Amino acid sequence: MATPNPELLAQLRELLGEKGVREEPHPLWPNIVLKPESTEQVSRLMKLCNEAGQAVIPWGGKTGLVDGLNETVGELGLSLERMNAIEEIDELNRTCTVQAGCILQVAAEACEEKGLLLPLDLGARGTATVGGNVATNAGGNRVIRYGMMRDMVLGLEVVLADGTVVCNLNKMLKNNAGYDLKQWFIGAEGTLGVITRVVVRLRQLPRSQNTALVACENFDSVTRLLGWLDANTAGTLSAFECMWPSFYNHVTREGSLHTPPLAHGYPFYVLVETLGSSPEEDQEKFEQVLGDALENELMVDAVIAKSQSECKALWEIRDDVMGFMALGPVALFDVSITVNHMAEFIAEVETYMNGITDSFNVTFGHVGDSNLHLILGNTNPEAFDKAHIEDTVYKLVEKYAGSVSAEHGVGLLKREHLGCTRSEVELQLMYRMKRMLDPNNILNPNKIFTADKVA
Amino acid sequence: MATPNPELLAQLRELLGEKGVREEPHPLWPNIVLKPESTEQVSRLMKLCNEAGQAVIPWGGKTGLVDGLNETVGELGLSLERMNAIEEIDELNRTCTVQAGCILQVAAEACEEKGLLLPLDLGARGTATVGGNVATNAGGNRVIRYGMMRDMVLGLEVVLADGTVVCNLNKMLKNNAGYDLKQWFIGAEGTLGVITRVVVRLRQLPRSQNTALVACENFDSVTRLLGWLDANTAGTLSAFECMWPSFYNHVTREGSLHTPPLAHGYPFYVLVETLGSSPEEDQEKFEQVLGDALENELMVDAVIAKSQSECKALWEIRDDVMGFMALGPVALFDVSITVNHMAEFIAEVETYMNGITDSFNVTFGHVGDSNLHLILGNTNPEAFDKAHIEDTVYKLVEKYAGSVSAEHGVGLLKREHLGCTRSEVELQLMYRMKRMLDPNNILNPNKIFTADKVA
Repeated sequence: MATPNPELLAQLRELLGEKGVREEPHPLWPNIVLKPESTEQVSRLMKLCNEAGQAVIPWGGKTGLVDGLNETVGELGLSLERMNAIEEIDELNRTCTVQAGCILQVAAEACEEKGLLLPLDLGARGTATVGGNVATNAGGNRVIRYGMMRDMVLGLEVVLADGTVVCNLNKMLKNNAGYDLKQWFIGAEGTLGVITRVVVRLRQLPRSQNTALVACENFDSVTRLLGWLDANTAGTLSAFECMWPSFYNHVTREGSLHTPPLAHGYPFYVLVETLGSSPEEDQEKFEQVLGDALENELMVDAVIAKSQSECKALWEIRDDVMGFMALGPVALFDVSITVNHMAEFIAEVETYMNGITDSFNVTFGHVGDSNLHLILGNTNPEAFDKAHIEDTVYKLVEKYAGSVSAEHGVGLLKREHLGCTRSEVELQLMYRMKRMLDPNNILNPNKIFTADKVA
Repeated sequence: MATPNPELLAQLRELLGEKGVREEPHPLWPNIVLKPESTEQVSRLMKLCNEAGQAVIPWGGKTGLVDGLNETVGELGLSLERMNAIEEIDELNRTCTVQAGCILQVAAEACEEKGLLLPLDLGARGTATVGGNVATNAGGNRVIRYGMMRDMVLGLEVVLADGTVVCNLNKMLKNNAGYDLKQWFIGAEGTLGVITRVVVRLRQLPRSQNTALVACENFDSVTRLLGWLDANTAGTLSAFECMWPSFYNHVTREGSLHTPPLAHGYPFYVLVETLGSSPEEDQEKFEQVLGDALENELMVDAVIAKSQSECKALWEIRDDVMGFMALGPVALFDVSITVNHMAEFIAEVETYMNGITDSFNVTFGHVGDSNLHLILGNTNPEAFDKAHIEDTVYKLVEKYAGSVSAEHGVGLLKREHLGCTRSEVELQLMYRMKRMLDPNNILNPNKIFTADKVA
């Protein structure tokens, strides 16, 4: 990889000081990391880099899963970790203004102390930053109720490739004063601008959480149950997480960390949750709705969490993904498939994987928002053909008009498969936008699409 | 105004047929209106117009309030009225795919028949089209619960200025496969592309509607009541519409169409509504929550609708805006102001208006989403100085960091005031986007900003 020229590095050191330019060896990511402490510094460093044609990779908590931070042409890292202040929690307007490097959980807990909910919730909450959440349009567990990060962002401050600061820390739900510029940068994975500050819309903190694990006899019941629960819980349904037996049976196997709350042997397990305002009434209502669903044969078994620790135990089953990595090399998938095609899609993936000796395949996902996660691997590393698995799965995604990325983004990992989901016309528009905002291609180059596409 | 050249008109007649090119005299809007019946026709007509440098104004139900359809350089009208089919209501994925010219209410009623809710609701529902709702990012009465049109659009088909069709009729809640192109066109008021088809996210149809009119003693109570209701109704609060006495007292005056459900004399009236799933329980809960609010002195009086007709009567008071137009010439405002500044803002507007002989000023709005509507007029037409009123109000909007447009958009009407809400850096980005997507400036030119800005 090319090394940044010494003159530029000297200028950056002068601008950012000792703490602002660090060497941090890593096999894949840039080894020199810039750590500005203000928007002004971000603006000035971008201007210097742009003039020198020096590429940078902006990053947050580095919890992404699509190789979005990998060095490709000798980039500098640009970490927002020193810009991590919670600038304001506005209880009246119910907004939270944070610097991009603020860790999601830190922001969420500060809001909680004021009786307010920052609704984004995902596994990496303790490390991921709000800026990273915006740059990747993070999703997570509560999208059916609160939407993705895009739906929570009211205001944004972004630094463009040439150092221009675009600041609109809007706090209002309605604002139709011309083009909604912030939308351009949300989910652009740091290729169009560096996010420096964010205004997040907050909600009132729920006072009750009701969680259950239910079993369904077929996928048709799963989808009908989703509609039923949504219709009967009046806007409070916040999670509908489906686990196939390949996931559930392994995570709760004998000798695992978890006791199975429901017996093995059912075709589908679903974690459902509502967030309400009246602890006692909500629990009664939740039990009644699930009872009715059972009576109407939308499900065949259920266990309702009776305490905070039982609720936590159910979520821990759903979140226990890492264990599968120990089984052998894996290919991870984060795809969207419309609910009507999910069963066929999974069946085709399973048929394909079952044809490979020593393979394993695991399925789970946020069925309520079309998002499936697959873990496809092989206990015999030598028999593992990642490229073939990826090609096969993404072709199936294309066949069923799904998306190669539901919530993780594209990065390097899905770049070659983007055409399965986006037409050439759409890709050309993306290239034009990139050329317009970053003509020297210095912001996270080669991510989402290759540099030659925007040359 | 320039007339379209005869050769182009002949080509358009050949392409669109007799029904597709109509003369429709109007004092402000283009008199020749193109009425394509397919995306293919829209694409081909745009290609012809682009090559001829002929400007067009795309329109839906023509219910906009910002002079967005006014002819400025001899445009052709482009009506999507013949493309009004509901192509699909997908009950499983809970989406509705419609052609842009489909009337909002028609689409909403078709969804309702399937037990599904198309959540956008606004006064012009019987005339406005879904395509127009997307192009203007329509808001309306239920934004606090369901968001604006932007939040409901899953997929979009757009025809660019040069005739290129950008089609992505996505039905999935999560889709992070590259830049989210549809966001560029939502709310762009037809200046960046012609919206031809839309996929709307639907919800389960609510089974209960509870509505009340309440009175508050001061604005602080109004804002605290909003938080209180939101916290105690667990995601079901769908409307929080505030009426100042200037509005309420006039609409319910003696001899008006409405009997006042609450006595005159209170400083604030608020229409609140929840949409739930259990008719009986929800009503009981609603009454209890309002009772508690009364006890906690968040409000001082309340009347709860006991029937569908009582509910309708309450909404009719809120919707009875047209009567004010008979009082004299008026300037209408649709602005956003954060809740913490609303009281000061209104006070300053009132002080200013009270200094004008024979003036009247009326305030109401969706306080839950920062959106205020003002009707400022004069019973003596000769004393009415619209330009002075607009300048004064928009300067106050700027002072309080509000938005000159909450939900109506910019069009011609607010073009000169856009700088009160948007910085020069933001405006320059808008111009660049316009130049990129419509280099010949033929799509609704001079709206949002003047042609010279993008020359």
